[in-house]
This record gives sequence, structure tokens and C-alpha cells, in this order.
Amino acid sequence: MPLQISDLGDAVLHTHYAVRGPIVARAQELERSGRQIVYCNIGNPQSLGQKPLSYIRNVLAVCEQPELIRTGAGIFEHDVLEKARYIMEASKYGLGAYSDSKGLSFVREAIADFIKTRDSFGDVVQHVDPNHVYLTDGASKGVQTALRLLISSEKDGILIPIPQYPLYSATITLYGGQQVGYYLDEESGWSLSEEMLEDAIHDAIKRSVRARAIVVINPGNPTGGVLSEENMRMVVRFAKRHNLSILADEVYQQNVYKPGARFISFAHIMSSMKEREVSLFSFHSISKGFFGECGQRGGYMEVRNVPEEVIAQITKLQSVALCANLPGQILTFLLVSPPKQGEPSYSRYTEERNAILSELARRAKLIYEGLNRIPGFSCQPIDGAMYAFPSITLPKGRSDEEYCMALLEAKGICVVAGSGFGQKPGTAHFRTTILPPTDQLARVIEAIANFHKNWN
Amino acid sequence: MPLQISDLGDAVLHTHYAVRGPIVARAQELERSGRQIVYCNIGNPQSLGQKPLSYIRNVLAVCEQPELIRTGAGIFEHDVLEKARYIMEASKYGLGAYSDSKGLSFVREAIADFIKTRDSFGDVVQHVDPNHVYLTDGASKGVQTALRLLISSEKDGILIPIPQYPLYSATITLYGGQQVGYYLDEESGWSLSEEMLEDAIHDAIKRSVRARAIVVINPGNPTGGVLSEENMRMVVRFAKRHNLSILADEVYQQNVYKPGARFISFAHIMSSMKEREVSLFSFHSISKGFFGECGQRGGYMEVRNVPEEVIAQITKLQSVALCANLPGQILTFLLVSPPKQGEPSYSRYTEERNAILSELARRAKLIYEGLNRIPGFSCQPIDGAMYAFPSITLPKGRSDEEYCMALLEAKGICVVAGSGFGQKPGTAHFRTTILPPTDQLARVIEAIANFHKNWN
Repeated sequence: MPLQISDLGDAVLHTHYAVRGPIVARAQELERSGRQIVYCNIGNPQSLGQKPLSYIRNVLAVCEQPELIRTGAGIFEHDVLEKARYIMEASKYGLGAYSDSKGLSFVREAIADFIKTRDSFGDVVQHVDPNHVYLTDGASKGVQTALRLLISSEKDGILIPIPQYPLYSATITLYGGQQVGYYLDEESGWSLSEEMLEDAIHDAIKRSVRARAIVVINPGNPTGGVLSEENMRMVVRFAKRHNLSILADEVYQQNVYKPGARFISFAHIMSSMKEREVSLFSFHSISKGFFGECGQRGGYMEVRNVPEEVIAQITKLQSVALCANLPGQILTFLLVSPPKQGEPSYSRYTEERNAILSELARRAKLIYEGLNRIPGFSCQPIDGAMYAFPSITLPKGRSDEEYCMALLEAKGICVVAGSGFGQKPGTAHFRTTILPPTDQLARVIEAIANFHKNWN
Repeated sequence: MPLQISDLGDAVLHTHYAVRGPIVARAQELERSGRQIVYCNIGNPQSLGQKPLSYIRNVLAVCEQPELIRTGAGIFEHDVLEKARYIMEASKYGLGAYSDSKGLSFVREAIADFIKTRDSFGDVVQHVDPNHVYLTDGASKGVQTALRLLISSEKDGILIPIPQYPLYSATITLYGGQQVGYYLDEESGWSLSEEMLEDAIHDAIKRSVRARAIVVINPGNPTGGVLSEENMRMVVRFAKRHNLSILADEVYQQNVYKPGARFISFAHIMSSMKEREVSLFSFHSISKGFFGECGQRGGYMEVRNVPEEVIAQITKLQSVALCANLPGQILTFLLVSPPKQGEPSYSRYTEERNAILSELARRAKLIYEGLNRIPGFSCQPIDGAMYAFPSITLPKGRSDEEYCMALLEAKGICVVAGSGFGQKPGTAHFRTTILPPTDQLARVIEAIANFHKNWN
């Protein structure tokens, strides 16, 4: 008899990943039948018209065909060819050979330098060990490696924010662990509170769950919130008190729109606290920021405050599927080593980067203001990341899943229901990206407003 | 307290992956201290001098920088630019956007056509559903998805050949399942026998293990064997009798050196048997064959005789990490849709392909003959794949692990001990690739012969 659904285990069957769930399947169906769909379900900038940065694609093209170092002089800037030549030499075998399980060493060294530069301010002189940096196929694969390490029985729990990015809930379920949700405080811009964290831990203890780690997504997905330094210090103290590792999902670190705000990493906060007892796994990606190179699957995980014998175990896990893809590794290298002032590609790179970031900031503001103008909507400031997660008032007894499906059918707008991310009982939300082109945004918001008025 | 090794679970701690284990770590250490190392531990052709095919890298370079469609007319052949233009259109958003979880649909359709053409001969007209094809980051990730689906408790067992490729043992351990080894018959060129398969099943029953699937690697890794059609039919009947899925690892399908032999897929065999009750997962890769594009991590999994509700579960699993990397997807497309006769790139492509394949065949023969000349060595014919797995006579009480470590220290040759792949108790082997350049091979074999004579 062929494999049956009844042969599959609960871990597989119970795994849910809303960002690509039934609403998206229905959207694709409608699109195939000729409907125009605006996909606001997933942070996939290049599918909504964002152009890749010229410099990074030029360098990558030359690395894929190194003969261009010789033949491409009339086409590419001098520094593009130089960079490609450097990459070819430093990688030793180019893009077609497996790298070390951790990734190419010159890329890991460049990442270490990037983190040092990013985090060394105030009292902090940041230290980074390139041997504790792992190149991954997008941040998702890094997160899965960390969770793999931390979940070894059905008693192992991971604290995740509510709302959260469903990679976490899906992977925890798949690995047979326990989700321990902690609520974010919507009214204060989705900040964390010590009380809510302690509530979550007590809930875990009541369920006989051994909490192993806390996931923090900053800037927040789906919330758009950016944590305060005090909030982050509180999390570190909390993690120490309860012997938790911290998983810091910092893939939106280049997407901070709040005027005057800057991104601060957990690595910086922990260094400033001289904290060496709390293990930290932090993640970055080429898919977000201003690269938006989702399809190329690049990213890294940096691990700190972890003994060498655990590092060896992580390396072993990474080695089973050999290595992260090399084009993604090269793009991660370019993310952390952009063109320098004075180099021919510098000004175009800077212009393209700034254009993308200011466009995203403009859209964040438009969506925030537009959604808040809709009666029955309340949206917190979008200080960072790529999403709005408005609270919506629904007729009694109706769910945000029904709402989102109906919005899709009526207006061709594909968003993800709040239930896919988690939310306080009795509330309803949806997540929309801020990625549709500015000239479409007003129409999208108007369509949502019209839909909302008439749906019941 | 930071995360400790004692916090980790048995699944992680007990996972072993010999191809990148302690011997390789020691080789890298020696290399850093200035020693010359010949890496024969891993099928990584481009690290040993194999050049990537010009055509595929040209197309990929243009896809990474589509401006080259316009600016690259003086550099690239017309059909390269045409192919890139087609890919850009068919993919809709190029290489920077997430694709569908299954992979780009035009690539899955091209794969379906490739399988149809490959498998339609004799009485068989092969049918393939592109919706049952999944693009994966190398074949490894496809294998892991299939095993994820099949292993849901510690009672679930997977039949794997002994010797096997350690991806299987490592992943089964990591997912908390049971390995059920079946021996290959070394003396008959590593063929399978019904008796040995039945022995394995009985062993499983005795251990209260529920056998879920059988893994077959054909052409064989590490053995170099190519299965006969009769052997394959026997496996299908066996799988049917015991209600097993088949995992057909066919990544070396383009590496068959035996004169007059051709690769035959399990999909073809099952179609010729009109077998619709046995679920089949088959795997292919861009890392082997004549592409050798290991670093780009591309491949596919084709699933057949599986109900749609199980297909939906596989798609869900793939969606959690979003999609396989797009450059790897594009290379997989190029693998299954090479230049056609009459196109400008055809002759160079064909020449480069043939040169690589005939070089590999020459090396397979050289190594087979060379190893068999060493007293105390016995090596089966290398009919396919990229490895030799000679049986070696060791002094009493010594292991092949010690032997390989000593060979590395003495001669700078890095091979993997037979124990990493599994072998009959009381026998000793090692795996070496056939990849070192032909002019180095004679020296490598001589060095092994000298070492073997003196080691005790």
C-alpha cells in the first residue's frame, strides 16, 4: 500500500506555517484563473518590484563566470572585477566546490569584522570569534539548527513571542518540543515586560516543561516594534535567572525607520553587561534589509558564550548537509563588506541603498497612517522590519481567518490572519507587508477600508 | 550557566558524519601547518581541479546580472543570452525572490520532461507529474525531507545498505529513528540479495522496529556498484511485500563507466512492473555527474505513488524554510535542459561534458587496477559513481580508522575509514574518491602501496 496520511507522525501533521498556508494557496488559485492578486503575505521584496543592487549582482555574475574578470573590463567597474578576483582567490575553488561546513573562512572573518564595527560603541569593544560564525541558507536554516540543538525531548520548551514569526512555532512542533508563548504588550508598541515573561515561565513549570531558550525578534516580525535597550537588558537578566539561551532574530537590523533610532544587537547589550553566562545565537540574512535577496538564500548565525565542545556539535550538525550554498555565502560577504568611499561603485551603491530604505520608510508611514484612519483598526507605529500588524474589530463570532479569506476573494489582497502568528484571546489581527509599490499602497488601503466597512 | 554539552540530547550527540569527521579535521590542521594534502574524502570535483561547464556558468552569470542580456552580446553566445532571457521571463522575478515552496514551476516541468525522456524505453512510456517534483538545496535536503516524513517515532526503522553514505545514518539518528542495515554482497560487485534483505527485516522485527522504507543508492556510494535490473525488480517486490517506501538515491546516474551499461531508474523499473502500490522518492543532484556543482546546492526529489494529501504534507515541510536557493534551481534546470544540437553552445558543451566523463572513467579504471595490484587489497569494479571502496587486510586488532589516520599522517592522503560507512564485522575498508587528477593518481596509489607495506 502506498504511504498514507495515517502513516505520518503528529510532529509533521501538527506543523503549521501560516505565511504559506491555505490563504496563499487560494490566492495562487485565483491568480491562475486570471485574477490580479496583491501579495502582502510574505516579505519578498523583489516579487513586488524591488530591484536588486547593481553592485552585488555584478560581483556575483563575475564570480559565476570568472572569465569575465578578463573579458568584462568594458562592462563592469574596476572595483567589481577586483572584488570578484579577491573572492575567487580567497574561496580557493570558486562557487562550485563544497566549502567547509561552517562556510568559507574569509566570509566568516568579514562577518566577524562587521559585527565588531557594528557593536563597538559606548563602553563596548566588541569581540567576535570567526570560528563561532556559521553561514546558513537564509536565517531560517540557522534558526532550525539552534532549535535542533536545544530541543531533545517533548519536555523541552522554547519561549516565543506572541505574536511570532511562524518559522518558530512550525520548527518547534516539527522537532517535538513545546512552545511557551509570552505576550508582547501591543499598547506600548509591542514591548516586552518582565511580568509577562515570568508568567510564561510559570506556565511552563505548571506544564512540567523545561524552558531552554527565549526567542526575541528585533525589529519585530510581525509587529514592527523596535525594542528599547532597557527591554533588552531585562531579557538578558531574565534569561540568566532561568538558565535560558537567547535566540536573537535580527534579520531586520537594517530596517529601522523610527527617526533617531538605531539598531542595537543583543551581542552589544550582552557585552555592555559583561554577560558571559547566557548563551546567545543571533541571526542575520540577505533576504531583508535593502538587499531583499530572498531567493538566493544567504545568512549567518553567530554563537557566543558557548563552550567549544558545543561548538563542535553545531559544526557536526551543519556538516550533515555539507554546507550553505556558495552564491548565498558570497552575497552575505558582500552584505558585510560593501564598496568603500572612493571606489567607483560606491556612489551608485549608496544611492540604490538609500532609495530602497527611504522608500520602505515612506511606505511604513503611509500604511501606519492609512490603517489607523480606518474605523475599527488600530495599528502600532511601524518602527522597523517590513510589516504592519493592525488590531481589527470584527463582528461577534467571526475570526480573522475568515476575514482574510474574504478580503482575498473580494479585493484580491493576500494578507495573513493574526491567528497564524498568535495573539491575545479575544483579539483579531492580520499581517500585511509594507512592500507594495507606493503608488499601489493608497489603493490597497482604500480597498481594505471599503471591505472592512461592508464585511460582517 | 551557558549551554553545556550535557544539555544536549542523545539524537544530536550520537549523530556521526564520517565524511567530515576527525580525519578530515586533522587533515585541515596539517594543511594549515603547511603540509600538502590530497583530499580523497569527499566527492567535491571542483576542489580537485574539475572546471565548471562554460555554458551553465555563462547562463547563470547572465541570470544574476540580467543587464548582460543587453550589454553582453559581444561576450556570450546568442543561445546563452536567449536561455537567460527565457529563465528571467519564466521565473517572473529572477533569482532574488522566494519561489513557490516546491520550486519554480517551469523548472519542475522541465524535470518532468527529462524523467519522461530518460525513462521511456522498452515497454515503458513514463508519466511524471511536475507537481510531485520538489527542488531541493542539493539532494541531501530532499533525503532529509523524505526521512522527516517517514520517521515519527523511535520505533520507525529505515533499511539502509551496508556500506552506505553516512547522510542516511546521520539523519536517521538525528530524527530519532532506527537504522536497519542490510548487507551488500561485496564479492558479486556489491549487489543486493533477497536473503540479506529478509535477514534485515527479521532483525527489525526482533528489535520491535517498524520498517518504513528502504534506501537504495544506485550507482553505489561508497561501493561503485551498479545494480542489475533483476536486482531492482527484486527490491520493488520486497518493498511491496513489507509495505516499505523506496528512497532511490540516484545522484550518480550520469556516472556509469561500465562499458555497455546504462543507468536505469527505479521510476522506470516500477513503471515497467506497473507497480502503483509502492511509494517512491527519488533524488538527483547538480553536485555529481559532469556538472560537479557541489557548492551551488541544487537538486530535486520526485515522489510517486503517494496520495495528494501526503504530497500536501511534503509541500508544507518544504515551505517552513521557504524554498531551495534559486541559483541551484536554475542549475538544475540547465542540467535537465542542455543546449540542443545546432545551437552555438552545443559543441563546446558536449566536448566539455565528454572530456569530464571520459576522464572520470579513465581514473576509475586506473584506481581499480592500481589498488588491486597492492598485496592485501581487493577492490570491486568501479562501474559507476565516484569512489573506490577497497577491502584491506590489516594486522590483527587494528582498525581502519587507525589505518586512515596513519595514512594521512604519513602520506598526506585523506580517505575515510570503512567504519564510517558500515561494513561486515571483521572486514576493513576505506573510501577514496576517484577525483584526483590523473597525473597525481599514480603517485597516490604508489604512496598507499608503500604505506600499506610498512604499516603494522
